[in-house]
Amino acid sequence: FMSKLPNITTSIFSVMSQLANQHGAINLSQGFPNFPEDERLLQISERIIRDNIHQYTPMAGLPSLLKKIANQTLKQYGREVNTATEMLITAGATQGVFTAINTFVNQGDEALILDPSYDSYEPSVLVAGGKPVRVSLNDDYTPNFNRIESAISVKTKMIVINNPHNPTGRIWTEQDFETLETILEKHPQILILGDEVYEYITFSQPHISFNMRPKLVERTIIASSFGKSLHVTGWKVGYLIAPEHLMFEMKKVHQFLVFSVNSFSQHAISEYLDVVDFSEVSKMYQRKRDLFQNLIENSRFKLMPCDGTYFQVVNYNQISNKNDVDFAKELIVNHGVASIPISVFYNDNTDRHMLRFCFAKTDETLIAAANKLNQI
Amino acid sequence: FMSKLPNITTSIFSVMSQLANQHGAINLSQGFPNFPEDERLLQISERIIRDNIHQYTPMAGLPSLLKKIANQTLKQYGREVNTATEMLITAGATQGVFTAINTFVNQGDEALILDPSYDSYEPSVLVAGGKPVRVSLNDDYTPNFNRIESAISVKTKMIVINNPHNPTGRIWTEQDFETLETILEKHPQILILGDEVYEYITFSQPHISFNMRPKLVERTIIASSFGKSLHVTGWKVGYLIAPEHLMFEMKKVHQFLVFSVNSFSQHAISEYLDVVDFSEVSKMYQRKRDLFQNLIENSRFKLMPCDGTYFQVVNYNQISNKNDVDFAKELIVNHGVASIPISVFYNDNTDRHMLRFCFAKTDETLIAAANKLNQI
Ligand SMILES: CSCCC(=O)C(=O)O
Ligand SMILES: CSCCC(=O)C(=O)O
Repeated sequence: FMSKLPNITTSIFSVMSQLANQHGAINLSQGFPNFPEDERLLQISERIIRDNIHQYTPMAGLPSLLKKIANQTLKQYGREVNTATEMLITAGATQGVFTAINTFVNQGDEALILDPSYDSYEPSVLVAGGKPVRVSLNDDYTPNFNRIESAISVKTKMIVINNPHNPTGRIWTEQDFETLETILEKHPQILILGDEVYEYITFSQPHISFNMRPKLVERTIIASSFGKSLHVTGWKVGYLIAPEHLMFEMKKVHQFLVFSVNSFSQHAISEYLDVVDFSEVSKMYQRKRDLFQNLIENSRFKLMPCDGTYFQVVNYNQISNKNDVDFAKELIVNHGVASIPISVFYNDNTDRHMLRFCFAKTDETLIAAANKLNQI
Repeated sequence: FMSKLPNITTSIFSVMSQLANQHGAINLSQGFPNFPEDERLLQISERIIRDNIHQYTPMAGLPSLLKKIANQTLKQYGREVNTATEMLITAGATQGVFTAINTFVNQGDEALILDPSYDSYEPSVLVAGGKPVRVSLNDDYTPNFNRIESAISVKTKMIVINNPHNPTGRIWTEQDFETLETILEKHPQILILGDEVYEYITFSQPHISFNMRPKLVERTIIASSFGKSLHVTGWKVGYLIAPEHLMFEMKKVHQFLVFSVNSFSQHAISEYLDVVDFSEVSKMYQRKRDLFQNLIENSRFKLMPCDGTYFQVVNYNQISNKNDVDFAKELIVNHGVASIPISVFYNDNTDRHMLRFCFAKTDETLIAAANKLNQI
């Protein structure tokens, strides 16, 4: 009995985290924070446990949470979102992405996926019976619009854009969006899936959300999540925003895919959104990025630009000729630091001698890791 | 932009619950308990909030929870399950069912679904690109094996069997399983998806699980959930059990569909499984079934047999000629009780003048509802 994903093997995140545990290595591989959750969120959680919040929420999500997200979207991006028709709470952004793709990508449809890319887009397209068409980013990980334009065919149904970008830490500029708008004007059949889970983690420039692009918004599905910005990756609460004509169709799939999302976590986040200040998130991670960059800038690892996300890409050309998977394993086994090899995010596993370190860690962890990296 | 589910409209559970709220009706429609959660579960929840349990669990589920489920499966059914290779925690059984179907049902494959049936199977098959083949149950809602056998073709990839059966409350007998075994012996290409979410809610006879059928187990995927048996439908924690060769493929899809399941709820349930006694669940619901049946046995509603689940089907032939959807609405608006019309569980919306009442409610609620039903 074959599935639609014959070539998938164990997730690199699981492989690296397991190897890290096995060797007692410092784990900068999978993206999750190792510092405590906000005390205010824990207090809310404790307080509401007895509030009779343990049965199904409505299918599209807890109404109060939808309202808070709509308020935040208005405040942050100036977009008014109708909570009844344009929003959906999902079990993390991964489920949102899968649902969007499996709603609209039909047998034989093509979906453009930039290369390298977060690892869930391509399998989601394959499960939908679609054809993933990979489009390489430039060498500095900025989008290459000539390649994007050439990759478009009459079968192109969707383009997936992850901004801020995991694994590379690059973010899209105003110019990038304008170029995309010009290209897509000629192709009204193409939907956009915007994965913006790192929307609150940008540094040099502010995040430009698809919520702010009136020319695109009518055909864009935005996926986001509270896992990254509220430091609760295990809660698996995300959301989709899309115009009604798209959301209407996605709700049908969502209803039968998962029906509803963990009620307790929705209630806790809903209350927490009254007090949380998202601008603090970027500041906190900018400080951590700066700390980590400063700590290893004199090492033999070469830092790539990091404008957003909590991932720092480095190149190890000066250290080893091994391919990045082997080198990442060596780094765990011999040097006690776990990372993610960037090749796993490429369709063809292109090895450019690049590793991704997650800096969503306590300062102590980052210092300890840097000490090890500096000795290599 | 069309989805793969053009004909789906708003879930009947949402429609009826909304109408019930609007009219202040007693809600016996959607299946969820309205009594408080077990105090021991709430205490565990409170106690563990500060235990650093808010980041991703491993993709296949929290190891301690997998272990507890394996222990329970051994104790209850005598089946040894390998936690590393044969189990997967899902975001509710709905996600488990969707994942199983979308892993194995390919474009053009047929999946047999009994009629009437829980409403998520058919859309899951359609999203997978498969063809749902509906097979009517007998008039008393027992399986009709002649029809099942005739419906099998070379394209049949899967048969979905929900036992105990929602919405009808019937359960499969030893003889039913033996007949199925005889039929399927001739068709080694057919997988079984066994939805057993009501496994701990049976009355007259004990539940026979696919876990206890050695002849079938190598090709069976069992979906279950803690929502019903632990009274926390909002937590969305379920699980799949399947032999390694099937589980291996489903994990690939799960990884990219949702990656992992709410960590807090997994931790809480894992601890709770040390103290909970599942045999109490059936006893508690049997008492409620008996109470509800006794309360309305002299009404003009006619009770159908209820051997399991927390749903009681009744026929209203003596009361109205309206179709069941209209009658269910009338029951809310004019008589203050919400139910689910059974026609919505049929492929062709067959109306047999049947309604489903959920008796997972406090005794007070059941008494109040019965008072209203007795006046009709
Ligand atoms: C869903 S596990 C991977 C977490 C993550 O987003 C990453 O490390 O890239
Ligand atoms: C997932 S909402 C429906 C709940 C349920 O199982 C039912 O009422 O049948």
